[in-house]
Amino acid sequence: MEFGDFKRILIGEPFPTSHETHERLDKIRGLAVFASDPISSNAYATEAIMNVLIVLGSGALAMTIPLGLAVASLVLLVILSYIQTILHYPDGGGAYTVSKDNLGETPSLLAAAALLVDYVLTVSVSISAGVRAVTSAFPELTDYKIWIALLAILIITWINLRGVRESGTIFAVPTYAFVIGVLLTIIVGTVRYFGIFGAVPMAVTEELMVSTTSLTGFAYIWLLLRAFAGGCTALTGIEAISNGVKAFRYPEAKNAAKTMVAMGIIAMTLFIGITFLATHLTLIPHEAESILSQLTRRATGTGFLYYWVQVFTAGILFMAANTGYQDFPRLSYFLARDNFLPRWLKNRGDRLVFSAGIVTLALFASMLIIIFKADEISMLPLYALGVMLCFSLSQAGMFHLMGKIAHLKPGETLQTNVTEIHYEQGVKWKRIMNAFGALITFCVFLILLFTKFREGAWIVALLIPILVYTFYSIKKHYTNVSRKLSTRTMESAELTAVANIVIVPIADIHRGSLRAIQYAKRLSNDVRIVTIITDEESKAEFLKHWNRFSEVTRDTKLELVEYDYRDLLTPIVDYIKHVNELEFPDELITVVIPEFIPERLSSRLLHNQTASRLRSMLRSYKDIVIIEVPFQIDS
Amino acid sequence: MEFGDFKRILIGEPFPTSHETHERLDKIRGLAVFASDPISSNAYATEAIMNVLIVLGSGALAMTIPLGLAVASLVLLVILSYIQTILHYPDGGGAYTVSKDNLGETPSLLAAAALLVDYVLTVSVSISAGVRAVTSAFPELTDYKIWIALLAILIITWINLRGVRESGTIFAVPTYAFVIGVLLTIIVGTVRYFGIFGAVPMAVTEELMVSTTSLTGFAYIWLLLRAFAGGCTALTGIEAISNGVKAFRYPEAKNAAKTMVAMGIIAMTLFIGITFLATHLTLIPHEAESILSQLTRRATGTGFLYYWVQVFTAGILFMAANTGYQDFPRLSYFLARDNFLPRWLKNRGDRLVFSAGIVTLALFASMLIIIFKADEISMLPLYALGVMLCFSLSQAGMFHLMGKIAHLKPGETLQTNVTEIHYEQGVKWKRIMNAFGALITFCVFLILLFTKFREGAWIVALLIPILVYTFYSIKKHYTNVSRKLSTRTMESAELTAVANIVIVPIADIHRGSLRAIQYAKRLSNDVRIVTIITDEESKAEFLKHWNRFSEVTRDTKLELVEYDYRDLLTPIVDYIKHVNELEFPDELITVVIPEFIPERLSSRLLHNQTASRLRSMLRSYKDIVIIEVPFQIDS
Repeated sequence: MEFGDFKRILIGEPFPTSHETHERLDKIRGLAVFASDPISSNAYATEAIMNVLIVLGSGALAMTIPLGLAVASLVLLVILSYIQTILHYPDGGGAYTVSKDNLGETPSLLAAAALLVDYVLTVSVSISAGVRAVTSAFPELTDYKIWIALLAILIITWINLRGVRESGTIFAVPTYAFVIGVLLTIIVGTVRYFGIFGAVPMAVTEELMVSTTSLTGFAYIWLLLRAFAGGCTALTGIEAISNGVKAFRYPEAKNAAKTMVAMGIIAMTLFIGITFLATHLTLIPHEAESILSQLTRRATGTGFLYYWVQVFTAGILFMAANTGYQDFPRLSYFLARDNFLPRWLKNRGDRLVFSAGIVTLALFASMLIIIFKADEISMLPLYALGVMLCFSLSQAGMFHLMGKIAHLKPGETLQTNVTEIHYEQGVKWKRIMNAFGALITFCVFLILLFTKFREGAWIVALLIPILVYTFYSIKKHYTNVSRKLSTRTMESAELTAVANIVIVPIADIHRGSLRAIQYAKRLSNDVRIVTIITDEESKAEFLKHWNRFSEVTRDTKLELVEYDYRDLLTPIVDYIKHVNELEFPDELITVVIPEFIPERLSSRLLHNQTASRLRSMLRSYKDIVIIEVPFQIDS
Repeated sequence: MEFGDFKRILIGEPFPTSHETHERLDKIRGLAVFASDPISSNAYATEAIMNVLIVLGSGALAMTIPLGLAVASLVLLVILSYIQTILHYPDGGGAYTVSKDNLGETPSLLAAAALLVDYVLTVSVSISAGVRAVTSAFPELTDYKIWIALLAILIITWINLRGVRESGTIFAVPTYAFVIGVLLTIIVGTVRYFGIFGAVPMAVTEELMVSTTSLTGFAYIWLLLRAFAGGCTALTGIEAISNGVKAFRYPEAKNAAKTMVAMGIIAMTLFIGITFLATHLTLIPHEAESILSQLTRRATGTGFLYYWVQVFTAGILFMAANTGYQDFPRLSYFLARDNFLPRWLKNRGDRLVFSAGIVTLALFASMLIIIFKADEISMLPLYALGVMLCFSLSQAGMFHLMGKIAHLKPGETLQTNVTEIHYEQGVKWKRIMNAFGALITFCVFLILLFTKFREGAWIVALLIPILVYTFYSIKKHYTNVSRKLSTRTMESAELTAVANIVIVPIADIHRGSLRAIQYAKRLSNDVRIVTIITDEESKAEFLKHWNRFSEVTRDTKLELVEYDYRDLLTPIVDYIKHVNELEFPDELITVVIPEFIPERLSSRLLHNQTASRLRSMLRSYKDIVIIEVPFQIDS
């Protein structure tokens, strides 16, 4: 079976380019597709807050509720702002697009770098949290969690390489099942907690952990900020809808905006519900079992609902990981199109997906999972940082856009690079909200950066500028190449002249080298055959063969180079360089290399690969045309 | 710093081919060079016997002495036989040469395969035993023994790549120091054991291990055979001198024979001495400390002499490993010269050593060390098997040679393929001894094979025929190639005709592709430019550029191929195949590929490598000459 067949079985038959279609989503499915990421953060966001507070003992966990409300307000603010973005960028207004259109290249690249980092984290955090949902329910699998996580990445990668679309229906199942399961848990939990309808109150954890630490003043505030920073992971994935407005049915922008509102309501309900119950049941975060798992177990027992919630927590988290597989390759494509990333990220594979981007993402995400041992809580300090930077940049961009709109008169329209803006009312208030949003999210970005710096935020803080620098370097390279290749300034006569010389390096006279000599003679009447002589015996032997084929070698010049070392390619390259520099400077000279081509790969190991090595040595010199005359040597 | 500079610092300045010299050894140094391997086996041979007997409890260890004497007799027999070999093959008579000269190709390849396996084992066993000498003295290093062993291999490989000769002086130090140290230990031990000169008798181990196993009849004999097989590792390395007769000073053969006798006496003295004392002090073999280390400690205390013996045990064992580095590349060279191994094993590196052979050996030996966790005792069942097969083949060869000599009349000489034989007296007895030797060693080979089969001998039993098969396959390939390349049966007119067509696949019009077109036009008046069109827009764009450079593109034919998939190389290859098969069957057709050449390696990642991929796809088709027209794109 050849590689091609194997690939076909694995990936499927190639799709023709013209077969590309775009599925449009209704609001129900749209919510499922885009909301899996933000809704799924409920699996870990509350825990991320509690994990910080627990240092002060379980008494301090009461602070989870106000911090949770602060996070919820932030979500509200961001959603309101993004609704503006959606309405003004109906073709898709991710942070990269909005910043580019309003703030310029560097801010847009900052946003892009932050987003790329975040998409990778979306995959590794969601997969790890999904695996944790599984191991919370089945603790005997805990030892294999890295392997399970890597297997999950492999499967998701494979599905995406096959090019299964963001099929709303597939997404809908785990997303809505998760929402229903958690809602039921919250309702049952609340009812039992308050003893409404005479329900028996649940046992509240008795064993209160008392910390030896007691903080005051600045240290206490610092701890609260860190806990708040942990909760901010709930904001990840909110911006996905703004990228995908065009995936909605007509009227796209309105449907997208409505979906965003619904998403916000659902995500916040779950977040506040989980936070409220987790605090009032005084659950203690620990590594073996997630807070959500503890909560469900306590509220509903280890019964059907418990396993329902765990299974669909894993399900929605894997769906959330899948959104990374949509976003990362798409953003890579945009960046590659603008020459900020390698061109091959633009290529679409057999199934019309950006295969290179998908594989790149899978590799980075797997790396993170291995480094962080599939522990999503330890990855969270890296997460949300990039998102917050994007929010801030995106809203700063909207602030700028609103400024332009404020100058429009009724009925007037203006075309930016990407979108069309019209006169509208209440711009002033919207603009203030954007400014406020940009400021707040930037402050949160700083809080995240400083409070989580030592825990891993430094990696992201370092990575983002490095990425931006790389983007610029790549752009510079491509600009340079295209300037060099450009025909705009060129006249036909300007092309490099081709020297009338052909050099044929050979080791011996055999059918392969005679074929090369014969070919060379067709190209030029100045054919020089170079051979390296290491001792008198081999010289005599060579000349004997040479004279036998005088008919072929007639009219060529034989150059015998004596050499006392064993690396026979060096004197050949030196000879060619010498001829090029002395006799034909600034002209293209031609080298004909006779090459054995063994059919089987295994036979290749039996030969010295001299032709290949000579070719790669010559490639680094300018102005040498290499001709490989093949000679198949397997039977 | 470039790779070349790095290599120079590591390996040293290249030596010119003509600088090769041969150092000749006197007997003292010759003994040190060739005897390190057989003498060093004393570090583990006795232990290998005891390790088997211990199953029957420490009482059974008394059998070590008769088994040791049996091994010593075998050594004597082999040495006597090899003296004949040395005298009759003064140019070097390894088992490969002698079998080839007397028994034919297959026996010689069996010997070669067995030797190659054994040389690898010489390295890994000696290194592991050397490391064990170190860890016996310094038990805190035990956890790192694999790393120490690999480091030792790295150092020995590096020394050999630098081409330090078998400098007799370097070898002399550890070899003689080891011999003196162990002899002293044996003397002190014996004196103290018998209480001669009123020395205080040593404490003899009290704790006798009583085994639950008690064997009778066949099972007991089987166990004794297994113990004997263990002791046979003492025979490894004996044949080294026969390979290296020419390394001795004049008269080479006589000096080599005398050295062989001296080696036998020393090795046997140590072996019997160690075996005697180890048994009478009832030492118990265990993994943490070698028998030799226990013996030295008991006989002389943990003082100066103890550390002396341990240090030089490690020293002589590393020297023994080094002999593998001399023998393996040399035998590989012989096999490669006879076309039984890949040709690159014939190439000598910068320092005139067979670098490829050295590196191959290092890789295999490291592999064994990792697999067997640097535990020489568990590698021993694989060892000695190959040696014994070689002894048997070599003596069978000598038996055959003696038969020829027996037919000579006084004064008559006869030339074999390799050596010259004369009439000599007593041939009959020598011949009987050779027959006896061949028979005995073959029996021992069978004993080793059967008694150690399950412990690892099966690996060697499987590997040897596989290697022989590989040798033949390689030979067949080379014969085939040389027949195909042979000019003997060829007439000049027979060369494949070159079709008057040049195909230039291009993606766009730019300086690089114009350069290629311009080059192609020099070669032929039938230039076809192929470009793949994926949509109407790109077609229009392409034609616009095309028309602009009509001066260059004049007199060429443009082929626009429409294609609805993304793998643009497939239609190009199809087009070329099509032209080749339909229009120019059995002729060489020429394809000119414009190629970007980024100067920096990092820039290569930014391009699609289309030219390289097209080249490797076309390479597998016959009769296509590939011309790469370069275009440097870095500034």
